[in-house]
Amino acid sequence: MTLTQQAPAPHIHPRAESPQTADQAVLIVHGRDRTGIVAAISAVLGRHGANIVSLDQYSDNPHGGAFFQRTVFGRADLKAALPAIEADLRAELAGGFELEYTLRDLSAPKRVAIFASKTDHCLLDLLWRHRRGELPINIAMVISNHAHSADEVRSFGIPFFHVPSQGADKSAAEAQHLQLLTGNVDFIVLARYMQILSADFIERVGVPIINIHHSFLPAFIGADPYAKAAHRGVKLVGATAHYVTEDLDEGPIIEQDVVRVNHAHTVAELRRRGADVERDVLSRAVLWHAEDRVIRHGNHTIVFQ
Amino acid sequence: MTLTQQAPAPHIHPRAESPQTADQAVLIVHGRDRTGIVAAISAVLGRHGANIVSLDQYSDNPHGGAFFQRTVFGRADLKAALPAIEADLRAELAGGFELEYTLRDLSAPKRVAIFASKTDHCLLDLLWRHRRGELPINIAMVISNHAHSADEVRSFGIPFFHVPSQGADKSAAEAQHLQLLTGNVDFIVLARYMQILSADFIERVGVPIINIHHSFLPAFIGADPYAKAAHRGVKLVGATAHYVTEDLDEGPIIEQDVVRVNHAHTVAELRRRGADVERDVLSRAVLWHAEDRVIRHGNHTIVFQ
Amino acid sequence: MTLTQQAPAPHIHPRAESPQTADQAVLIVHGRDRTGIVAAISAVLGRHGANIVSLDQYSDNPHGGAFFQRTVFGRADLKAALPAIEADLRAELAGGFELEYTLRDLSAPKRVAIFASKTDHCLLDLLWRHRRGELPINIAMVISNHAHSADEVRSFGIPFFHVPSQGADKSAAEAQHLQLLTGNVDFIVLARYMQILSADFIERVGVPIINIHHSFLPAFIGADPYAKAAHRGVKLVGATAHYVTEDLDEGPIIEQDVVRVNHAHTVAELRRRGADVERDVLSRAVLWHAEDRVIRHGNHTIVFQ
Amino acid sequence: MTLTQQAPAPHIHPRAESPQTADQAVLIVHGRDRTGIVAAISAVLGRHGANIVSLDQYSDNPHGGAFFQRTVFGRADLKAALPAIEADLRAELAGGFELEYTLRDLSAPKRVAIFASKTDHCLLDLLWRHRRGELPINIAMVISNHAHSADEVRSFGIPFFHVPSQGADKSAAEAQHLQLLTGNVDFIVLARYMQILSADFIERVGVPIINIHHSFLPAFIGADPYAKAAHRGVKLVGATAHYVTEDLDEGPIIEQDVVRVNHAHTVAELRRRGADVERDVLSRAVLWHAEDRVIRHGNHTIVFQ
Repeated sequence: MTLTQQAPAPHIHPRAESPQTADQAVLIVHGRDRTGIVAAISAVLGRHGANIVSLDQYSDNPHGGAFFQRTVFGRADLKAALPAIEADLRAELAGGFELEYTLRDLSAPKRVAIFASKTDHCLLDLLWRHRRGELPINIAMVISNHAHSADEVRSFGIPFFHVPSQGADKSAAEAQHLQLLTGNVDFIVLARYMQILSADFIERVGVPIINIHHSFLPAFIGADPYAKAAHRGVKLVGATAHYVTEDLDEGPIIEQDVVRVNHAHTVAELRRRGADVERDVLSRAVLWHAEDRVIRHGNHTIVFQ
Repeated sequence: MTLTQQAPAPHIHPRAESPQTADQAVLIVHGRDRTGIVAAISAVLGRHGANIVSLDQYSDNPHGGAFFQRTVFGRADLKAALPAIEADLRAELAGGFELEYTLRDLSAPKRVAIFASKTDHCLLDLLWRHRRGELPINIAMVISNHAHSADEVRSFGIPFFHVPSQGADKSAAEAQHLQLLTGNVDFIVLARYMQILSADFIERVGVPIINIHHSFLPAFIGADPYAKAAHRGVKLVGATAHYVTEDLDEGPIIEQDVVRVNHAHTVAELRRRGADVERDVLSRAVLWHAEDRVIRHGNHTIVFQ
Repeated sequence: MTLTQQAPAPHIHPRAESPQTADQAVLIVHGRDRTGIVAAISAVLGRHGANIVSLDQYSDNPHGGAFFQRTVFGRADLKAALPAIEADLRAELAGGFELEYTLRDLSAPKRVAIFASKTDHCLLDLLWRHRRGELPINIAMVISNHAHSADEVRSFGIPFFHVPSQGADKSAAEAQHLQLLTGNVDFIVLARYMQILSADFIERVGVPIINIHHSFLPAFIGADPYAKAAHRGVKLVGATAHYVTEDLDEGPIIEQDVVRVNHAHTVAELRRRGADVERDVLSRAVLWHAEDRVIRHGNHTIVFQ
Repeated sequence: MTLTQQAPAPHIHPRAESPQTADQAVLIVHGRDRTGIVAAISAVLGRHGANIVSLDQYSDNPHGGAFFQRTVFGRADLKAALPAIEADLRAELAGGFELEYTLRDLSAPKRVAIFASKTDHCLLDLLWRHRRGELPINIAMVISNHAHSADEVRSFGIPFFHVPSQGADKSAAEAQHLQLLTGNVDFIVLARYMQILSADFIERVGVPIINIHHSFLPAFIGADPYAKAAHRGVKLVGATAHYVTEDLDEGPIIEQDVVRVNHAHTVAELRRRGADVERDVLSRAVLWHAEDRVIRHGNHTIVFQ
């Protein structure tokens, strides 16, 4: 059965040149699916005169599976109205729903710390993109276990902290990291940071950590994967951006991409092309995380692009 | 301000192996944006005990721009409940909103006629994919101005009609087309159909028509574009699937893709690779149209993937 | 130092519509690199009045590394001249060079057997590309452990042999395979053939075997990799075409590609999209092998596209 | 007929980590195809004890079409031997062949001037790739009609010249350009330089000029193409790098690529993603030109990757 009701065609408004985020907030709701969640949330927003700018919803199984909703909404004087909206949402969702939610004023960009080591292509790409206005983030600091990028980072007006981290015992370095980070950042980006973070650090720092990692089909385990990939003659090299969990390089994937290579490429050229993919994939992951487009669920992610 | 309320983590349900469409419907709503549309629709669905399976919403400008929403919902005994849901939606949306909507029971696939000519790669690809269960469509008939595919099409159990169409005057052929099509199909796919459809036919047939067209960067106008592309040395050849309007090949774009070529490829090889892209792009456009994922708006489309 | 000598600009010949292979041969030379190989080969061809149509050469290390050359050449009455050319090459290369070579008349396409099981997307794609004239091969037979594709295959005019292969002991089936294949084919394509070939069979059949395999970043080992990939939330699914060696799925890679997926895709949809990549990648691998564009070397390949 | 002669399998040398260019030269030969060119060139190189590192050859029609060959060769004390090799080549090729050639010592990178305007993403990407050792070029200077990048460019140790260019009459600016460039550069890169170069300038400067240009399927002519592309709802935005000729944006294409976009992207986001493709495509075009991998022929290019 198809039923169609005609209405006057809407006037075509040109797409806005840039999203107006001054009076907008993003609401993420995530939990067990059941009838009525979308209606309940929409009703709350409607009661407060908020207009829904975009809404993405996904359910992995409508019969009691997991429910995910990202809603961007706006209204005049949003900042003043947010506490009442939040209280209303809390009351509405607390009732019968098993849901967790996050509500964030989009006028305040997330604060990030970038960790880097010697290889600086991902670090510089993020600094550039930020300066060009591509990334709605506030880069609070860059932390590196090498000092050589200090001048370059500071020329972007961003604090640089050199925290050496040699030997197996990372506790001194991690203590210094925690001192610098605690209360100052909303997430961390490992931009080719070549040191392993301890499970204790990951737990204590308490904010999401995004890592970028080379990827191949098939995977090559252990040291010097590009040399192994060249030896096997792979035709694609790639990169994966993922959240860091205790299981190194096994966390939920945010984004992936590949680039074509051939037999004539040296190992150095594979690395070079891999680096291009790494910076592109990492910048997309950072953008989507900054815009609350990524929801973690079990060991995978829902990405509302 | 970030406010987070914790809730018990939902049990992780595996993603369903295939979408359950037996008791599901899709609702497309499209019109002028204003506060409260999502809430109003959700409330109607909630009142009828329907569960929202997926919801995509997009507004091209929250301040009075155009509003688009695709909602898939389900409930037991959907078929029996649909008329009441529809009446309720009509009443709710008629009030203050300038909206048009389409409501469709997903258990009844859309009926399609495929038009083809001599080149059969797009036609065969659609027939195969349909046989493999990839396309939720009901292929009502194949119409061709060449007879040579008749046996092959009929071996798929699909009616084949040969309607010759020579000379400038297409009125006899189009009259025959209208006789075959009227009341029998919900949309038409031009699978490399090499005849021009008259504006009169497009209007009288009254259903959406999807076409597939080669594409280059830059475009090459006129006859033998692949030879021109080879002469200019393009490095990519592509294809565009779009809705047919009176302006030939200028209608709203549904999907595009490209494939890499090089100087050593002959014109025949460019065509061959172009054909691969054509069939992939056309099959995606047909799938998305069949699932009501494409909303036309002015001269472009909103595609909820 | 840059030295340029001007010459009359050559008249621009349009690229030939299709390669003229009636009087052409392909020569593959492969061995230890040293000074003078290209010159020696060119001199032989020149003495026999052969014109070089295309020449690709690659050395993985000019100081005693491995040398690879693919040369397509033509002359009138090629067939009559080939034995003398071959004798001359043998004499020239036998001298001081450590090289092996293959010389093949391009007017005689390679003969291939396609192995298939229940899943037929790769099989049908090859049959259909062959019918469209895209693949310069002679499909001698299709062998399957399921009977259900028999009519379809035979409708293409190609012999179909049903060789059941149940249980752990494949020796009876493999004996039948060898009887069908020996002397009749130049290579074998496993088009989603779901049976494992024994090392003994691979050795006794004595011709190259090409397999197609799903691929992910990262790889997922064992049963039901698409379900594992969905659980991890991969954003790309891919396929790898490779030569079969004793180490299952570890042989030299010929070609790879990927397609983008997202969180909303069911496991069935991942398989469907994976199938699209599989057929594209396999058809490219078969084409390149048929044209002698792929040279195996250790565990990787040189592909002259 | 297939004849195979077995030889001892060559020892597998690992691929060199980076190409050894200290004692290597590149020879480009281009002209009318006829029998014996490859042999003649190889013989000359062999007489001088030069080893061929890589050889790519292409003929667009073996029966008197156009012939293209790129050869990289090496020997000890190359610099001292080059004049004799060149004299020998000249004598050999002058005879009966209608060919032009270019011979270049690879130890001396090409000198380039980069032209830029306000938008600096392509400029910065080239400077930064150069610093990372990815581009074998010598950046002699950056010329801009805006002063604002001066400090940033000079921080890379590269001279920056501000040459204003307002109004329709570019003759004063172009005179200054010629003064700066003449004798100092081997090619020019327009890295989003937004001024039109006169035909007179192009002729007088006498070196190849590479430009980067946004590209769409279909093309959008005139001002603000990204807005037009958004209005038409394109699903891909791309970029084309080409040689500059008198016909603006119509010169031979070197490289192209695209990136996927969707209906939710603002015009600003289309530009941002287009910028990513532009810098990638331009850097590949510059690399290939710097390595003499691109041969212009009529209005297209042969690219030996």
